[in-house]
Amino acid sequence: MTEAAYDTDNIFAKILRGEIPSHRVYEDEAVIAFMDVMPQGSGHTLVVPKAPSRNLLDANPSTFDPLFTVVQKVALAVKKAFGADGVTILQFNEPASGQTVYHLHVHVIPRFDGIPLKPHTGGMEKPEVLVENAEKIRAALGS
Amino acid sequence: MTEAAYDTDNIFAKILRGEIPSHRVYEDEAVIAFMDVMPQGSGHTLVVPKAPSRNLLDANPSTFDPLFTVVQKVALAVKKAFGADGVTILQFNEPASGQTVYHLHVHVIPRFDGIPLKPHTGGMEKPEVLVENAEKIRAALGS
Repeated sequence: MTEAAYDTDNIFAKILRGEIPSHRVYEDEAVIAFMDVMPQGSGHTLVVPKAPSRNLLDANPSTFDPLFTVVQKVALAVKKAFGADGVTILQFNEPASGQTVYHLHVHVIPRFDGIPLKPHTGGMEKPEVLVENAEKIRAALGS
Repeated sequence: MTEAAYDTDNIFAKILRGEIPSHRVYEDEAVIAFMDVMPQGSGHTLVVPKAPSRNLLDANPSTFDPLFTVVQKVALAVKKAFGADGVTILQFNEPASGQTVYHLHVHVIPRFDGIPLKPHTGGMEKPEVLVENAEKIRAALGS
């Protein structure tokens, strides 16, 4: 059951510290949400607790209420912002599951009838598309 | 944004009322967990809040703390019970996302290096395998 320790230099820790930029759509005292730069579908957003944990397995359970309250808000917002038919929630733990960044995060992906998810590690989205999509989600969150 | 109303005759509502059987591994005042009968991998378990909602989109946010606290317990238990390398958490909202039962549920799936997930609507698992796997998970939860 022993896993690697939390690495404070993971990319989401750097985003949380403001050391590298992100297309942020939401922030409160416990959680931030920003655009996935390698989206599995238009509007693919990541919801990330500020508390450090490698993934769900080692998270303090006090993380879950604020985290999933924001996951729900973001899910409703991306559904509205993109006129989606559904929303897929994914959360990966350890490499065997497809985890690639070792700070707990939840994927929120708008879904459209008949359109499959793109692979988890597909291409980088154009920054201007991420800017535009983040603006749509912020508008939906605020309304 | 309008979705269909909650259907009290969905299969998980019937399981919650004890009208149809399940291979249960955990129960508390707010949540139950039982084996998925069409597993995407050995030990695929469903965690289900007792409070009625169609999916995450219409759930009362008070659902999330007890639900994901049990998701974490079950994730740790299946990882231990099956010697898994990782755990995938999936939660589907509406048919476009692959949702097939319209009561909020979270999929907890043990993962093994190099072994892909089976399709969401694959074959039915043999009952004796489900019995055996449920026993392993209950043992891991209790230890």
